[in-house]
Amino acid sequence: MTAALLEQYQERIRTELDRVVDFWLKYSHDKEHGGFFNCLGKDGKVYDELKYVWLQGRQVWMYSRLYRTVERFHRPEILEAAKSGAAFLQKFARVQASSGPGKCAFCLTRDGRTVKFQRTIFSECFYVMAMDELSRITQDKEMQADAESMMDRLIFWVQTDSSDLGRPQLPGDLPINSMAVPMMLLCLVDQLTEGRTDVAEKYKDLSGWCVERILQHIQRDGKAILENVTLNGKELPGCQGRLQNPGHALEAGWFLLQYALKKGDVQLQKTAVDKFMEIPFHTGWDKQHGGLFYFLDVDGHCPTQLEWNMKLWWPHCEALIAYLMAYSHSREPVLLDRFKQIYDYTFTHFADEEHGEWFGYLSRQGELVLDFKGGPFKGFFHVPRCLYTCEKLLDGLLERQDS
Amino acid sequence: MTAALLEQYQERIRTELDRVVDFWLKYSHDKEHGGFFNCLGKDGKVYDELKYVWLQGRQVWMYSRLYRTVERFHRPEILEAAKSGAAFLQKFARVQASSGPGKCAFCLTRDGRTVKFQRTIFSECFYVMAMDELSRITQDKEMQADAESMMDRLIFWVQTDSSDLGRPQLPGDLPINSMAVPMMLLCLVDQLTEGRTDVAEKYKDLSGWCVERILQHIQRDGKAILENVTLNGKELPGCQGRLQNPGHALEAGWFLLQYALKKGDVQLQKTAVDKFMEIPFHTGWDKQHGGLFYFLDVDGHCPTQLEWNMKLWWPHCEALIAYLMAYSHSREPVLLDRFKQIYDYTFTHFADEEHGEWFGYLSRQGELVLDFKGGPFKGFFHVPRCLYTCEKLLDGLLERQDS
Repeated sequence: MTAALLEQYQERIRTELDRVVDFWLKYSHDKEHGGFFNCLGKDGKVYDELKYVWLQGRQVWMYSRLYRTVERFHRPEILEAAKSGAAFLQKFARVQASSGPGKCAFCLTRDGRTVKFQRTIFSECFYVMAMDELSRITQDKEMQADAESMMDRLIFWVQTDSSDLGRPQLPGDLPINSMAVPMMLLCLVDQLTEGRTDVAEKYKDLSGWCVERILQHIQRDGKAILENVTLNGKELPGCQGRLQNPGHALEAGWFLLQYALKKGDVQLQKTAVDKFMEIPFHTGWDKQHGGLFYFLDVDGHCPTQLEWNMKLWWPHCEALIAYLMAYSHSREPVLLDRFKQIYDYTFTHFADEEHGEWFGYLSRQGELVLDFKGGPFKGFFHVPRCLYTCEKLLDGLLERQDS
Repeated sequence: MTAALLEQYQERIRTELDRVVDFWLKYSHDKEHGGFFNCLGKDGKVYDELKYVWLQGRQVWMYSRLYRTVERFHRPEILEAAKSGAAFLQKFARVQASSGPGKCAFCLTRDGRTVKFQRTIFSECFYVMAMDELSRITQDKEMQADAESMMDRLIFWVQTDSSDLGRPQLPGDLPINSMAVPMMLLCLVDQLTEGRTDVAEKYKDLSGWCVERILQHIQRDGKAILENVTLNGKELPGCQGRLQNPGHALEAGWFLLQYALKKGDVQLQKTAVDKFMEIPFHTGWDKQHGGLFYFLDVDGHCPTQLEWNMKLWWPHCEALIAYLMAYSHSREPVLLDRFKQIYDYTFTHFADEEHGEWFGYLSRQGELVLDFKGGPFKGFFHVPRCLYTCEKLLDGLLERQDS
């Protein structure tokens, strides 16, 4: 019974990944200036030419990862696209500072002029992911060194001195532990250390630091995952402190589980599932209309984010990975039930049979609100990473089932 | 017939204004630290203690204006509240720079420590409105001078050198004419010049400049009002250039009409109504579910703002003022029809019979999405300014009807 169900998932997910890759190969490449168009309508048509650095980096990473690890995507056009994106990023995204590699832009014009900087670390994070993954294919040592030097810069900003980021120090704005930062760094450590024991040794302390910082988000006697806490893991006052982001908690969940499985840390495996997967399911699932809420307030106040009750594609992608990874490890039937519930909602609501790729933004009731396939924060990343990771997990599950 | 209808509006609007004022008097005053709580739940309970400078300034202005110009609000508690807010702002919102009055913060802690700056001019604009209006009651010459010196600073930032605002000059981010800036300055000129011929003379050129900049937003052969254009009034590329914000256009409409009526400029009166009131009605009204959309794309693409199809309270407030002001001047029945249509939607959807004040954020279908009465961008301003202005307009209409 279960095997038949898993095979059905495998088949659909595989087909869906092919369609998603085809969509971006067909519509997103800028053959004139290099890099990728990010803003694609439901039918793939470009509706804005701006290039978002997060999304450029993510697309380079995803193409490279697919090329390197999935036989059917080991195609020259995919490698060429990754190289074009990386060249665009290296040429235009980075600003050279006197003290070494400087910030990356957040947004560029089609021809690479800077439109905007963010005073955060995320453009740089996706730059690191892109360069490291591509350099594993091309064996480009310079590119690999570029990734590592940016990574060291990131660690300096996060752990030592963030003044390069340009955020003024204000007396009412104390530094906080925002979930995104340790999550992202843990993800980068996973990226950089794959198959490299020397690099793993170099970042050993950092992984520990990331895990500790992520675990600080377990609050309210273990009953809630809060998005922002103080630097020593206490609850912050007001809306900022009460904010829950179920999709983010789930993403942190599978990052933690993946790390704990590698380390053989049984206690951390349990925490990843019990806290970062079970809690956001119980608090985040909309019992009335289905789907995961975007934001919630732990005390039941209304969040101040206008989009709080919308159903976004990416929390559902992260949930699919989280529950399938957890099931794959423990074979607990309840985890497969969770996966099934998210899967059913996701494939009936986000996937687009007509043009391929997924819609990203639904109302609470599940109706389409924004109909584009690519936008300032939606690119070739969460959907294919989810399908790719789930396909791998299903391959593993079915293989073990066979044997 | 019409008189009876107008009387009915007058009665309801008067009652509603009383309830709204009572709500903020009762729940928003911080008796310990001064100033106002902004984040109030549906029942008035404080759910976050942060103080937003836009909203602090607006509340001081609104209390002062009501105290000064409406007999039933000429009450000591209202004046005291305005003074407390102004003292809080003067003490905490302004950062003194070596070169004169510096920026105002965007957000403060309850006890006045700066949480955030915005790299725009709006905190300063509401600071000017607040100080000017209060100083008209107290005859505080120093406060009036404070308002004027901040105004002169604003003009310098907008017309001469914006580097104090802290926005980096980036090669892909050319300066643009964003509707909010000339609108806001025209509103401030109206504020500062009331009953002062010398000040009116000082800002005469500025008003002309504002009007010219606002009119540049009429695009597409006079068929669209676009939110952002180039500095010489051409359409910008991409989403930014195609953006329409019907509520903002309507607000600009009544600012322009008010200015044109004072000047006796018949051509500008006609433009205000035909372009800034008729166009956003036809493009912005949701024919399926009623209410005004928040954002639209002039070419029919989906806006990238997640909240584009939501119905917000403030565009409806601005629309009520705009159509009633236009009707009041021309007595064109179609303008009263417009007012009636907005009024019916607004009073059935936003007003809260139970606790007073209005809800602010509905789904496209008109269901409540955010249930608070005050939040980071919703304070004691759009609702009472709308009710106050409409009450005055209705008083005028009914007086003239009587005579």
